[in-house]
Amino acid sequence: MIKIDIEALERRYKANLINSLSGFKSLNLIGTCDEDGNTNLAIFNSVFHLGADPPLIGFISRPNSVPRHTIENIRKSSHYTINPVTKDNYQQAHQTSARYAQKISEFEACGLEYEYIKEFKVPFVKNSPIKIGVDFVREVPIMENDTILVIGQIVLLEVPDIALNQDGFLNLEQLGIVCGSSLDSYHLTEQISRLAYAKPNKS
Amino acid sequence: MIKIDIEALERRYKANLINSLSGFKSLNLIGTCDEDGNTNLAIFNSVFHLGADPPLIGFISRPNSVPRHTIENIRKSSHYTINPVTKDNYQQAHQTSARYAQKISEFEACGLEYEYIKEFKVPFVKNSPIKIGVDFVREVPIMENDTILVIGQIVLLEVPDIALNQDGFLNLEQLGIVCGSSLDSYHLTEQISRLAYAKPNKS
Repeated sequence: MIKIDIEALERRYKANLINSLSGFKSLNLIGTCDEDGNTNLAIFNSVFHLGADPPLIGFISRPNSVPRHTIENIRKSSHYTINPVTKDNYQQAHQTSARYAQKISEFEACGLEYEYIKEFKVPFVKNSPIKIGVDFVREVPIMENDTILVIGQIVLLEVPDIALNQDGFLNLEQLGIVCGSSLDSYHLTEQISRLAYAKPNKS
Repeated sequence: MIKIDIEALERRYKANLINSLSGFKSLNLIGTCDEDGNTNLAIFNSVFHLGADPPLIGFISRPNSVPRHTIENIRKSSHYTINPVTKDNYQQAHQTSARYAQKISEFEACGLEYEYIKEFKVPFVKNSPIKIGVDFVREVPIMENDTILVIGQIVLLEVPDIALNQDGFLNLEQLGIVCGSSLDSYHLTEQISRLAYAKPNKS
């Protein structure tokens, strides 16, 4: 074991290391539109569960030191889509993190087909196996580092019935959904087991 | 694909399904102490990266409909430890989610040895391969569902040098760290690859 003097670390090294510490992360593409219908797609490793009832989901938007098209579009249109990254599209998903100009759609630039579902105004990633349509609820500024917690409510949901267990558990692994670590590492998963609801006098 | 009518779902089914949607999750044991030095340990699947500089980390504390010893202790002592769950301790880690009484330490009740490091007042999980000591920064109420975002700053860090790459990337997989999905599923990972920093005209 080595003790790390965090403050003494070089900037890029520190980013790689500190980003490793929170563990494995979900990887999702967030789709948005501006007021003219121009689409945007960007990969996020910070989408997390906030609550089931109501169905709330959060993500962190990085500081506005450079333009952040995703949060700008969400403020304008109030809707977005969350599209899990899979083993089949993780390379294109990673490419969406490049700094494309505002007028460029990452759907086209990165080779990811889009798909609209019914009346929902923002496109989904066609080959992503779960379709999550979200209404913007609120943004919470994190003044300590100028990031923003974006809170949304899930209003549209389509899932493959083949992966949906009888108790509502959705088998992400069966769908080829991947996870990430640090800033740039992609991982498949292998289920160990599901464990029963824990009670004090039972193991 | 089937369209899900979320509002019509039975409560437990809904919890399993909505908890699946955010993707794979980090799994961490959070260690705390009350003012008398009584220790507490609880598993969380909502620890996430907030920023590298300063090194900030967040997690979500569930609603106070039942006593929440972790957040209560953090308010009292201002310090906590974050201990990644591994393939060797995930069963004991899961058991910490049982509702033990306030005076019971989950370290003892669940068979997880503790370890103190230097002057840091809160214990770490001895067999967890990464030691993260955190100072409480602030709590942010999420009034939409009475959860709380807890923000902390990493002030103590020890990692195994064998898993630390030259660029600061920490190999979680090599350390046997696991991830979770939905409420009760545990997964090993298998790295696909690390990808280069993305630029617009390069794939």
